[in-house]
Parts: sequence; C-alpha cells; structure tokens
Amino acid sequence: MAAYNKEKVLILTPVSRFYNEYWQNLLRLTYPRELVELGFIVPRSKDGDLALKKLEKAIKQVQTGKKENRFSKITILRQDTESLQEQSEKSRHALKVQKERRANMALARNSLLFSALGPYTSWVLWLDSDIVETPPTLVQDLVSHDKPVVSANCYQRYYNEEKKEQDIRPYDYNNWVESEQGLKMAEEMADDEIIVEGYAEMATYRVLMAHFYDSNGDQNTLMELDGVGGAAVMVKADVHRDGAMFPPFPFYHLIETEGFAKMAKRLGYQVFGLPNYLVYHYNE
Amino acid sequence: MAAYNKEKVLILTPVSRFYNEYWQNLLRLTYPRELVELGFIVPRSKDGDLALKKLEKAIKQVQTGKKENRFSKITILRQDTESLQEQSEKSRHALKVQKERRANMALARNSLLFSALGPYTSWVLWLDSDIVETPPTLVQDLVSHDKPVVSANCYQRYYNEEKKEQDIRPYDYNNWVESEQGLKMAEEMADDEIIVEGYAEMATYRVLMAHFYDSNGDQNTLMELDGVGGAAVMVKADVHRDGAMFPPFPFYHLIETEGFAKMAKRLGYQVFGLPNYLVYHYNE
Ligand SMILES: Nc1nc2c(ncn2[C@@H]2O[C@H](COP(=O)(O)OP(=O)(O)O)[C@@H](O)[C@H]2O)c(=O)[nH]1
Ligand SMILES: Nc1nc2c(ncn2[C@@H]2O[C@H](COP(=O)(O)OP(=O)(O)O)[C@@H](O)[C@H]2O)c(=O)[nH]1
Ligand SMILES: [Mn+2]
Ligand SMILES: [Mn+2]
Repeated sequence: MAAYNKEKVLILTPVSRFYNEYWQNLLRLTYPRELVELGFIVPRSKDGDLALKKLEKAIKQVQTGKKENRFSKITILRQDTESLQEQSEKSRHALKVQKERRANMALARNSLLFSALGPYTSWVLWLDSDIVETPPTLVQDLVSHDKPVVSANCYQRYYNEEKKEQDIRPYDYNNWVESEQGLKMAEEMADDEIIVEGYAEMATYRVLMAHFYDSNGDQNTLMELDGVGGAAVMVKADVHRDGAMFPPFPFYHLIETEGFAKMAKRLGYQVFGLPNYLVYHYNE
Repeated sequence: MAAYNKEKVLILTPVSRFYNEYWQNLLRLTYPRELVELGFIVPRSKDGDLALKKLEKAIKQVQTGKKENRFSKITILRQDTESLQEQSEKSRHALKVQKERRANMALARNSLLFSALGPYTSWVLWLDSDIVETPPTLVQDLVSHDKPVVSANCYQRYYNEEKKEQDIRPYDYNNWVESEQGLKMAEEMADDEIIVEGYAEMATYRVLMAHFYDSNGDQNTLMELDGVGGAAVMVKADVHRDGAMFPPFPFYHLIETEGFAKMAKRLGYQVFGLPNYLVYHYNE
C-alpha cells in the first residue's frame, strides 16, 4: 500500500473561492499528512483576495497545531494571468466564454504544477476547491488502482422538488469516451477551434462517465476514458514529469483537463475513470 | 539588473557524460551563486553511472567549500526512461535514430524541469553538459535582453587543416527561422512524422542562425526564431509555468527543443536568438 511505501502525494487545487466544506473534507482525509503536500493557486482579483485570506487562516490553524497533524508542505501561488471576474454559474458556463475561461484555468493548473511538483512526489491529486464531500480514503482509493490517470465521478447533491427529497445528480461531464461523431467534428474543425463537452449546441454523442453511475455497482469498477475533468483526478507524478500538462491552446481540439488526458495518451499512458466512485460538487 | 533584483536562476543540464571543462566554465560564471540553483538528470546506464560519480565529486567540492561559493540548491535526478546506449557522434546523428533519441531527450528535459522548477525561480538556463566555453557573464548577458526565450549561437573550436590554425565552425543547427519549404514539408507529412533540422536528406531551406555569426557584429544583435536548440537557452520561468515543455511527441511535426520553441509561440511568446553571441561545444 502506498502509505506503507511512504509514497508522497501532492494535492493541487486552483481556488477562486474558499469553501469551508472543501477544507473540512480535506482535513477528514486519512492518508498520513506527513506524506501529503498541498498546493493552491489563487487569482489576483477581489474574490481571490478573499479566498486567500480564508485559506491562509485555515492553513495557519492546522500548521501551527499538533505536529503530527501538519501537512508536510504547503505552497500558495497567486495567478498573474487575467481571470474572468464574474463567477456566477450562468456566466461561467456560456459556451462562448468557455474557451477563454478554460485556457485561463489551464494556465493556472500549469503554474501550480510546474512550481509545486518536486523530485520526490509519487502522486498528484487534482482536487477542485468546490469538491465538498469525498470518501475519507480518497487518496488511498484512487492510488490503489495504480493507474497513470484515474478520475472520480463528480456528482452534486440537490433537493429533488418532484420526489420531495434530497437526491444526487451528475455534475461534471468532462469524463468521457471519444465517439465517432466527436472525431468527425474535430476533423472538420478549423485548427484553432475546440470542442468542450456538455453543451447541446455541440452534440458529440460521446459516452459520458457521469451517466454510468450505478448505485449498486462496485466502487472499484474502472472504465477507460479519453477525456477527464479536474474535480478529483489522481495522476502518477511521472506522467506529469514526462511532460503531460494542461494545454491552454487547442491540442487535438481539446484544452485544459480534456487536453491533458489526450496528452497523457500521446505520451503512451492509459486514462481511467471510476463511474461508481462519487465525489460531490458544491451546490450554490 | 537581474542580480540586483535578486532574480533566481535555475541552470538545468541533462548529462550523459561529465566534462570537466563544462564544470570549470560553470564555476567561472559570475552571476551570484546564492541566486543560482542547479539541476541535472543523468541516465541510468553505465555511462550515466560514471558521469554521476564525477558530477557528485565536483559538486561535493564546491558545496562543502566556502559558504559564499556554494550554489543555493542542487538537484540530481536519475532518468528512468530508456536511453540509447551508444553515444559515439556518428551513431547519435543518423537521421533514423534521431526521432527516438530526441524523444528520449525531451522526456529527460521535462522530468528535470517539472521536478526542479520551484515557485521562486525567475529564469531557467538550459545548458548542455558539453558546452565547455561561454562568456563568464552568460547569465547576465542572456537575462539582459529580457526576452521570453533567447538562445546563444553554438559553435565549436577545431583545428583547420587547410589554414593550419585553430578555427571555429557552427555546431548546432537547431536555431532557425521557419521557411516556406519547411511549412510545406510539414503540411504534406503524415501526422506522426517529424522534421529534424540539419540533415541533407531533409532539406528545409530554413534560415539557420548558425550561419548568421558575424565576428565583427554586435554581441547583442537579436533575431527572431521559430526553432531553438538546447545548448544554451535562457527561458523566463513563467514561459515554462504557462505550460511550455519539450514535446516528446510530434507537435506541429517538431519535437524536443524545436517543439518547445513552437509551444512557447503557441502560448503567445516570442523566441529569439543571438547570432553573434557564441558558446562552444566540446570537440571529441
Ligand atoms: N486559480 C484560479 N482558479 C480558478 C479560477 N476559476 C475557477 N477556479 C477554480 O478552478 C476549479 C474549477 O473551476 P469551477 O469554476 O469550479 O468550474 P466548474 O465547476 O467546472 O464550473 C475550482 O477549484 C475553482 O475554485 C481562476 O480564475 N483562477
Ligand atoms: N539525461 C540524459 N542526457 C542526455 C542523454 N543523451 C544526451 N544527453 C545530454 O543532453 C545534451 C545534448 O545531447 P548531445 O548528445 O550533446 O546532443 P548533440 O550535441 O546535439 O549531439 C547533453 O547535455 C548531453 O549530455 C540521455 O540519454 N539522457
Ligand atoms: Mn466547480
Ligand atoms: Mn552536444
């Protein structure tokens, strides 16, 4: 097991907003903290300033507390690239702003990765700042598959008005298997155009992992993927060291985390997802 | 000036053989050592073992010497990827082995970069292990241009049999400006083919910086480039942090340092060379 081998894990999180639930969930993770480094990148914006303040306060509490509860190292970066100011859900998702937004996210992820990855890290866990609930054994579980890249299935809790009860629904559609239609669209596109998954205007008919969740299924079920999201993805550090980054420019008509999966594959690695292993996104 | 601003420089060198002249030249560089970190990657091979032994001995001498002469940090990595065993000049250069060799070099450079680059580095100087002579002000000179990427002109000293005297000749042809012919070749190529510069079998008619050296010219003359070599190249750390790495796979039909230049350009940066600023390659 990874912890017995003293394998070091670097958890990387781009942070536009600080969620207390994210931090509490992080603190509940049971992987030994002396083997865990954290890295954050916060945009230079008003929202970023606020997030940074909360993050620093939370960190201080842990890192000045009991020695055995401290993380081995924490890096915080500010992001110099421009950041879209408006962050309401609607404005974030409009197809036309996605390209710029995702390119900007790719730059942030790359800065964080290139600056925080050291020579001794075995695994990099990408964990978004709005992932508010995961199994406490998240690190061990993802590492146990021993895959170059493995992505959890990102769902969201919500109140189902019809059923009048708490329910769950798919949130992240960036974990997918390429389709004939997707390949055809890419082929017919201009060099600089990109495909972003999850928009009706751009139906790819890709197989989306989000739809493969089976509440009775085995948590360890793996499926091979061609694209991943960034919600909760475990990457062998050597995949990044070989050069796999988050393309901010169209790479086979893909960018950011989806382009990263393609790049990992170009480097000869396989990419997997865990349809029955859920992590939960904040519900605003 | 960079040194007054306390800008940190990371010098990265892939090392298949240790040259004492390289080390002596490195020690002659006048940039303040407390601002200089070094990073090396040595292949896991017999040659690599020997190079590592010599390198470690040389490092020990400096780092256990006077405090003010020590480098701020030194990282040594071993390279896990396969390495071509034969390293005689002829076998290294045959066109057919270039693709595999350069892909392997790209993996080595990426490992070194991803592992050694920290959050505080301002500049990354790529300096090959067989560069045995440079101006002692190499770091200051290259940094002074304040360009995202700037490459020195790599020559070689040799004995000119005709003239019966010591002379110099171009060595590295990887610093170039793209040509119509180069673009046309790329367009007509299969997706996975690459162009490597400097082979008669593959005439690109690119403008090669190697031929632009003017012994009476200004050392500071800049020319914009599309491809660079790795002999002595200064890169703003933020160019790497944005994601610019050394593609081990064909990227616009280019790989390794030449692919890196293309990637820097895709990220919106300009790439330059200094035709009249010479560094010298070992002559075997
Ligand atoms: N550094 C940085 N992080 C960001 C920025 N925008 C979003 N993030 C973070 O990146 C992750 C994904 O972004 P998010 O807005 O949640 O995307 P969505 O859930 O796919 O709509 C989250 O961890 C955000 O906190 C940004 O401009 N800069
Ligand atoms: N880590 C590593 N370094 C290498 C390997 N092959 C060459 N190098 C180094 O990479 C740089 C460029 O390689 P070199 O053989 O000099 O290429 P050339 O001068 O273009 O023929 C030099 O610093 C070499 O010491 C390898 O397999 N692994
Ligand atoms: Mn989110
Ligand atoms: Mn050489």
